[in-house]
Amino acid sequence: MSVDVPVALLGYGTVGCAVARLLADSAEDIERATGHRLRLVRALVRDVDKEREFQPEDGVLTTDFALIRDDESVAVVAEVMGGLTPTGDHILGLLRAGKPVVTANKQLLARRSTELFAAAAEAGVQLRFEASVCAAIPVIKVLRESLVVTNVHRVLGIVNGTTNFILTRMESGASYEEALAEAQRLGYAEADPTEDVSGADAAAKMAILASVAFGSRVELDDVAYEGIDQIRPEHVEAARSLDSVVRLVGTATLVDGAVDVRVGPALVGRHHPLASVEGPFNAVMLHGDAIREIMLEGPGAGGLETASAVVADMVSVLGTTGTGFLQGDACWRSLPTLPPGDLPAPFYVRIAVDDRPGVLAHVAERFADEGVSIAQLSQQVQNGSAALDVVTHTAPSGRVAAALDAIASLPEVHARPEALRVISERGV
Amino acid sequence: MSVDVPVALLGYGTVGCAVARLLADSAEDIERATGHRLRLVRALVRDVDKEREFQPEDGVLTTDFALIRDDESVAVVAEVMGGLTPTGDHILGLLRAGKPVVTANKQLLARRSTELFAAAAEAGVQLRFEASVCAAIPVIKVLRESLVVTNVHRVLGIVNGTTNFILTRMESGASYEEALAEAQRLGYAEADPTEDVSGADAAAKMAILASVAFGSRVELDDVAYEGIDQIRPEHVEAARSLDSVVRLVGTATLVDGAVDVRVGPALVGRHHPLASVEGPFNAVMLHGDAIREIMLEGPGAGGLETASAVVADMVSVLGTTGTGFLQGDACWRSLPTLPPGDLPAPFYVRIAVDDRPGVLAHVAERFADEGVSIAQLSQQVQNGSAALDVVTHTAPSGRVAAALDAIASLPEVHARPEALRVISERGV
Repeated sequence: MSVDVPVALLGYGTVGCAVARLLADSAEDIERATGHRLRLVRALVRDVDKEREFQPEDGVLTTDFALIRDDESVAVVAEVMGGLTPTGDHILGLLRAGKPVVTANKQLLARRSTELFAAAAEAGVQLRFEASVCAAIPVIKVLRESLVVTNVHRVLGIVNGTTNFILTRMESGASYEEALAEAQRLGYAEADPTEDVSGADAAAKMAILASVAFGSRVELDDVAYEGIDQIRPEHVEAARSLDSVVRLVGTATLVDGAVDVRVGPALVGRHHPLASVEGPFNAVMLHGDAIREIMLEGPGAGGLETASAVVADMVSVLGTTGTGFLQGDACWRSLPTLPPGDLPAPFYVRIAVDDRPGVLAHVAERFADEGVSIAQLSQQVQNGSAALDVVTHTAPSGRVAAALDAIASLPEVHARPEALRVISERGV
Repeated sequence: MSVDVPVALLGYGTVGCAVARLLADSAEDIERATGHRLRLVRALVRDVDKEREFQPEDGVLTTDFALIRDDESVAVVAEVMGGLTPTGDHILGLLRAGKPVVTANKQLLARRSTELFAAAAEAGVQLRFEASVCAAIPVIKVLRESLVVTNVHRVLGIVNGTTNFILTRMESGASYEEALAEAQRLGYAEADPTEDVSGADAAAKMAILASVAFGSRVELDDVAYEGIDQIRPEHVEAARSLDSVVRLVGTATLVDGAVDVRVGPALVGRHHPLASVEGPFNAVMLHGDAIREIMLEGPGAGGLETASAVVADMVSVLGTTGTGFLQGDACWRSLPTLPPGDLPAPFYVRIAVDDRPGVLAHVAERFADEGVSIAQLSQQVQNGSAALDVVTHTAPSGRVAAALDAIASLPEVHARPEALRVISERGV
C-alpha cells in the first residue's frame, strides 16, 4: 500500500532541479521499490521568482527556512544548496527538529561532521551523505553496508574529475595551461580552479571516505594535500618512460592503528586499475581483509548524477527508519593520526642537475644517508642541462623528504625536488 | 541494545567455514552497526564428523534439514551448499516456513528464481543473493538501492575470473592450453573447466544481473552464450594490432523495450575501462540514464570474498525486516526477448583465405549484400596462407551472421569465420 511522503529541499539550483525532476519522473519506480510515494512540498531558495529548469508546483519554493523546519509532515530534507553558512546551521536546525537529512555538501561534512552527527544521534534521526563524495558512485553505501565485515584498511581514490581531466589531456601532449583552459571551456573546471587544482576538493572527499572506512573522524585539517599545479610535461613524459601515468591520488591508510590521509600527484603503473581512469571520471579503490580490493568507477560530478545519489539516500532513509540499521554516525572510535613522514611508500623524484661528473654519486649518497634505497636511477641530458629520474624502494616519506632537503643543498642541484608517490601494483 | 539473533547455514564447506569465521570474528562490528548479535546455531552438512577449517561449537553441525527449518528461533538462513538438488527444495522449504534466506547459488537462481521469489513473496520474507554474482563485488545492492532512480539500460560484465585469467595470460604469449593449465595449477580453474570456458557460468550470472537491472525475469535458457575455447593466439595478436584486448564479455541490453542477454568473446578497446580488468578479476559496468556509467571491479570468486557478501546480505535482511524496503522480487514486469540477430553492434571477423587476387573484393561484396558496412579491412599474408581482419560498423548481428554464411561458401575461404563483438569506447 502506497504511503504519501512529503519531502523538502534546501536549495533549488542545478542539483535541486535534477532532484525535483527525478522525484517526479521516477515516482512510480520509487513507489514500487519502497512502498513510498515521495512528493516535493517545499524548496528553500533565495529568489522565488527566478526562472528554473524544472519548475516545481506553485507554493513549493519559499525563502523561509522555518516553513520547512516546522512543517511536521516533511519526512526527509535534502540539502543541495552548498556552502558552509547558513547551510550548517540549517542542517543542525532540521536534525534538532527531528527531521532526517540527506546532504551533498562535502566541504561542510569535512569540517563540521562531529557536531552534525552528534545532533542527528541526539534527535534519533539519520544524516546520509552519499552524494557528498563522487556523485552517483555509491561508495558510502558500499563501505557501510556491503563491506560491514571487511575491515577496510586502505582507500585509494581519484576523487577529483577536473584534475584527472587535465592530467589525461597532458598525456596526449597538452601543457598544463592548455589542459586547464580546455577543462574550463568544457565546464569541468571553474573560472577560479583553485579548489580543484590545489587538491583541496579531493582532500575533503578523502576526509569523508576515511572517516567512514576506518570509523574514526578525519576532518579536512587532518589531510595533507598537494595539487597538480606543479606538474609539468616532463613529469608526464618521465611517467611514460616508467610505464606509468600521473594521477592525483588520495590515500587513506590505517598503519598500526593510526590513520594517514593525504592527497598528491602520484605515478600509477599502467596495469594498476587506477591508471585506466581517464578524463573527468572518478574511482575509489577499497582494500579490505575479506575482499582484497574492490574498485568503483564512474562520473564524479554532474547535476543528474549527484541528484541520483541524493534520491537514493532519501529512499534509504525512508526504507530503514526505525530499524536501527547502519543509521548512526559511522565513527565509533578515535584513532590517532600517523606522524607526518611515517607513511612508507615508494617515491619517484625528478632532480634537475648540472651535467657534471659526480653529481649522480652525490645524489645517491644523500639517499643512502637517510636509509632510502634506490630501485631505479636514470640520467637524461638535454641541451646541456640534465635531470635525474629516481625511483626509491618503499621508505617513510619523511626520510625521503630529508634526503631531498640534503640534495637541494648540493651545488649541482637547481631546486628542491618534489617527490611523487608510486602506485605500481594491485594491492599496493 | 543488543539483540541476540540465531542464524543457520545450509552447507559448511569453504564458503560456509568462511561465513562462520566472519560471524565469529566480526560479531562486534556487526553489533555496532546493526544492534544485532548474530550467532551461528545450526549448519546442515552431509558428514558431521568431517574435519573442518573452522570448527563450529558442539551441536551446530547437523544432517537433519528439518531441525533448521523447524527451529523457530532461527532468524535467517544462508545457503552455501551449492547445487540444484536438494538445494532448491530446501530453500523453498525455508521460505515457506517463514525464514528469510540468503543464497550464493547462481545456477539455482538462473533456473528457478520465478518459483523461489514467488514463495518468498507469499511468505512475506526476503530472499537475497548478492554472493551469487561476482562474490564480494556488491553489484546487486548497488543496482537495487543506489541506482533505484537510474533506469539502467545496459550491463556489461567480465563475470568469469577463470576465462579472464586465461585471456590475460594469452596476451603475455601463452597458448590457450598453457594458460588453462596454469589456471588449473593456481586453483582458478576446475579439473573439468567446461562450465567456465564454455561461457555457461558467465551466462548464469548475466541472467541474474539482467533480471535485477531491467526488472524482468531472464533465465539461463534466455542467454545466448559462447565461450573462449575457440580463441587462438591469432585473435589476441589481431586484437593487439587494433589497440584492443580479447575479453569474455556478458552484455545485457534493453532495446526498444526488449531484452537481449548474451555472453561471448569480444574485442575491447585499450582505453575502455573493461580492458584494464586483468587476471582473475571481475568487473560489471552499468549504463543508466542518471549515472552515465558506473563500473564495479574486484575479485569475482574466493571463499572469504563470497562469505563477506553472504554476511552483508544477512545483515541487510535483519536491518530491513518489516520496513518493506526493496525486499521483494526485483522483477515487476515481463519484457519480451529481442529476436536473436537484432542486436546491433560493431563486429570483428578474422577470415582465413587463399592468397588469390579478388578474394578481398568477394568478401567485401558479401558484407555489402547484407547491408553491413566495413570500418576497417586488412590482409595478413604468412607462409602462403592469408587472413582478412575485418571490423564492421554497427550492424545487426543477424546480418553479420548471414554475410559470414555467404562468405563461408566462397571457394577461397577455408572455414565459417566467427564474429567477435567490438567494445571500443565508453558508453558503447
